[in-house]
Amino acid sequence: MAKERRSAIEPTRAQDYPEWYQQVIKAADLAENSPVRGCMVIKPWGYSLWENMQKSLDKMFKDTGHTNAYFPLFIPVSYLEKEAEHVEGFAKECAVVTHSKLELGEGGKLVPAAPLEEPLIVRPTSETIIGEMYSRWVQSYRDLPLLINQWANVVRWEMRTRLFLRTAEFLWQEGHTAHATRGEAEIETLKMLSVYEDFAQNWMAMPVICGKKTEGEKFPGAVDTYCIEAMMQDRKALQAGTSHFLGQNFAKASNIRYLSEAGAQEYAWTTSWGVSTRLIGGMVMTHSDDDGLVLPPKLAPLHVVILPVLHSEAEKENVLKYCETLKRDISQKKYCGSEIKVDVDSRDLRGGEKMWSWVKKGVPIRIEVGPRDIAADSLFVARRDTGEKLAYPRTKFLEDVPDILQSIQDGLFNRAKAYRDANTVEISSKEDFYAYFTPKNEKKPEIHGGFAIADYNGSAEIEDMLRRDLKVTVRCIPLSGAVPKGKCIFTGENAKYRAVFAKSY
Amino acid sequence: MAKERRSAIEPTRAQDYPEWYQQVIKAADLAENSPVRGCMVIKPWGYSLWENMQKSLDKMFKDTGHTNAYFPLFIPVSYLEKEAEHVEGFAKECAVVTHSKLELGEGGKLVPAAPLEEPLIVRPTSETIIGEMYSRWVQSYRDLPLLINQWANVVRWEMRTRLFLRTAEFLWQEGHTAHATRGEAEIETLKMLSVYEDFAQNWMAMPVICGKKTEGEKFPGAVDTYCIEAMMQDRKALQAGTSHFLGQNFAKASNIRYLSEAGAQEYAWTTSWGVSTRLIGGMVMTHSDDDGLVLPPKLAPLHVVILPVLHSEAEKENVLKYCETLKRDISQKKYCGSEIKVDVDSRDLRGGEKMWSWVKKGVPIRIEVGPRDIAADSLFVARRDTGEKLAYPRTKFLEDVPDILQSIQDGLFNRAKAYRDANTVEISSKEDFYAYFTPKNEKKPEIHGGFAIADYNGSAEIEDMLRRDLKVTVRCIPLSGAVPKGKCIFTGENAKYRAVFAKSY
Repeated sequence: MAKERRSAIEPTRAQDYPEWYQQVIKAADLAENSPVRGCMVIKPWGYSLWENMQKSLDKMFKDTGHTNAYFPLFIPVSYLEKEAEHVEGFAKECAVVTHSKLELGEGGKLVPAAPLEEPLIVRPTSETIIGEMYSRWVQSYRDLPLLINQWANVVRWEMRTRLFLRTAEFLWQEGHTAHATRGEAEIETLKMLSVYEDFAQNWMAMPVICGKKTEGEKFPGAVDTYCIEAMMQDRKALQAGTSHFLGQNFAKASNIRYLSEAGAQEYAWTTSWGVSTRLIGGMVMTHSDDDGLVLPPKLAPLHVVILPVLHSEAEKENVLKYCETLKRDISQKKYCGSEIKVDVDSRDLRGGEKMWSWVKKGVPIRIEVGPRDIAADSLFVARRDTGEKLAYPRTKFLEDVPDILQSIQDGLFNRAKAYRDANTVEISSKEDFYAYFTPKNEKKPEIHGGFAIADYNGSAEIEDMLRRDLKVTVRCIPLSGAVPKGKCIFTGENAKYRAVFAKSY
Repeated sequence: MAKERRSAIEPTRAQDYPEWYQQVIKAADLAENSPVRGCMVIKPWGYSLWENMQKSLDKMFKDTGHTNAYFPLFIPVSYLEKEAEHVEGFAKECAVVTHSKLELGEGGKLVPAAPLEEPLIVRPTSETIIGEMYSRWVQSYRDLPLLINQWANVVRWEMRTRLFLRTAEFLWQEGHTAHATRGEAEIETLKMLSVYEDFAQNWMAMPVICGKKTEGEKFPGAVDTYCIEAMMQDRKALQAGTSHFLGQNFAKASNIRYLSEAGAQEYAWTTSWGVSTRLIGGMVMTHSDDDGLVLPPKLAPLHVVILPVLHSEAEKENVLKYCETLKRDISQKKYCGSEIKVDVDSRDLRGGEKMWSWVKKGVPIRIEVGPRDIAADSLFVARRDTGEKLAYPRTKFLEDVPDILQSIQDGLFNRAKAYRDANTVEISSKEDFYAYFTPKNEKKPEIHGGFAIADYNGSAEIEDMLRRDLKVTVRCIPLSGAVPKGKCIFTGENAKYRAVFAKSY
């Protein structure tokens, strides 16, 4: 029912999607670039999203038997070298610590001094250092499984960065487990993938496809990499989480061996799995609109904001008192087992400015309260997801508020899923595939297809060709529906996989 | 009522206190040294202590109006240089990042490549990078106060490290606030000091003295540093937390200016305050005994452990079932507003080994349940703090368990306070002071005095003399009871302060 009007975010998604994304983040005050190359500052509103994600994920990890621990930030270069593919994958972009002090040099400038015997890198991921510790902790089959998670910062010296999606430093969790058997480790890998799927869909309201990466896209050193892939509103894919079955590769590199029940020395089987602050970027891009951020209630720092509408000083006391009582009443309601988070914004700002500030921050429900509403004991309630505005009798609203929040949560998921489904096509010829991924308008290269599902021969050559010609990659071989229906659409050979193809972040 | 016996930890505190500390940590499986110089690995039991500390502190910070955010790990060297005392304090021991990749060098070894234009240091503390961001965020008095906290890892290249107490990398929180007036910033500094005092005393059960540091001991760049100081069981002091009034020093260095209500450009007044994983070391050393770790219930990862006593396979099912029911009943009780954390240890271990493992881990209450106890519906309950063992009727225990936990919490605080008070003396002559701090036995240099309270002239010369002669420092000028009673005991001059002196960590 919104009137035709200018959007709060400029440019709009249709006008310039990448810039729209930056502006949504700015308008919601989530994060900004720091003067340190590639490193972002996560501001309070953005960080509270991460805190809420951490809280839910942490409970899921603990409910599946994991405990948290903390391992060193620094990794000796010699550790990285132990696994050949791993070092290949990470040596190219890493922060290298070479000195342990600064001294005054020529011209009074501080220069590095006290060189280290062996350079250290700032962890880009912790398989090697954790593997070293596990090799000390694991002696017998009784010490297995080891089920440990770490919340930490990691650094990958990315050349082209983008807030949340790709930054030199980011925050994440990395689970690292060691098992006595291959089967157990494989089950763990898939179990954590399904934890990520559950979190993405039921907390972030972000539909995802669970699948397996091809050889060319997997984690350096992994036997198998599984992932969850989501579609953003520019129809590009975002890899939102990965779970790796590492086989015995890292166990051999780090010498994680155990004495089996039968008395033999065996290498352990390990896994690792992680999600990062990238999820915030995914959440922003999945739900936000041309008026700014839209938050799923389950992760919103604030569920309801009450905006007193004051036309004169005389009304002020009465209206504010009513608002405070309303706040108290709402906060006694529960949503998903916790108190509903509600606040009164009594800042001395113009009504429009104040209202828009909360629209742009994505708060699910806004309530405007003025003297007339008080007289009628009625609330003027606006939903952030649909823009719908309704007058509610006060008691009715108090009864319904948990349901309204759940309806917003469900509505966001359904809307995102419908969008993804509408932009996913099955393709059965190379010509259609190339046409689908070729921008129709040179000025808007972001307008192209979405997800394509197609059969192919599974070869690296085809993947290279698509990457080169179209910047398209195999996002994953889905865990369900992956049986090829026909021949490879690119070569006419027998198809090995039915895969999801897309451009991606 | 404990019988004369060997202690579970060797050596005992009296035999070798520093080694006892290492062995308590090892026996409780809290942490260990990593192969990365100076960096520790915090193991699950140790990390859960940090998680509990974080949870309580974080709530206290939020209740006092602070929000969390996240700032970059790296600090450009030029930022560090902005505040003269600050750079002096931190340049000597820091990790310097100089390159952004590794390449194969001679002999096939990886060597640093792609040198950075400007070296970065890994944050030893974040005043300078946060100051830079604040200078961008603060424009007008309306933007103040800024009340932000960060949970993060920091690195100081310490030469002599010790688990938790002094490590190259450690975890901490650092609060950074900016205010419009000096008075407001001073109030903030003292408010956060009292949050730390509250946390130390009421959560960690660790009595502390609140006071101010002397010029020589304050934070590099601060106007005033306040601290909480605790006494360990070797009668040394541990600085457990600090809160700094930074005046306008960092505001000037980072150009944090605001337009005042009166329309003038003014520098803001800033504060910073922090506690770290060092607190875990303090907690270990305050309460533990010759049998290992002793945990205050408010921070224990587990309050009650139930140990089934099985003499035959036939009893097993019945005993385990009783234990599980007991666990459920206990977990429905509340302590300090939360569920009591209880577990059954049904591992296949010898009874003695199993029992001692929980003694060494510091769990406040152990319950042994065997067939005879079940027949009598009675529980054999052991308190970790006093060693006391009592048979409790089951229903009586269920009623009393929150009170028992609180009595352990209070008992630990009172015991630690009595120990500190018994080892604190007022000293009124230099001779007595030197005698107090001179070890009586050359072989046991750790046996010396404890805290000395004495009047002195407040000069750096006296402080240098004491540091050189006795390794004693002014721990703080207490916020209460700091009025000198007489002349400076070292010079006979007028006394400026009545201070607390001690050896320290």
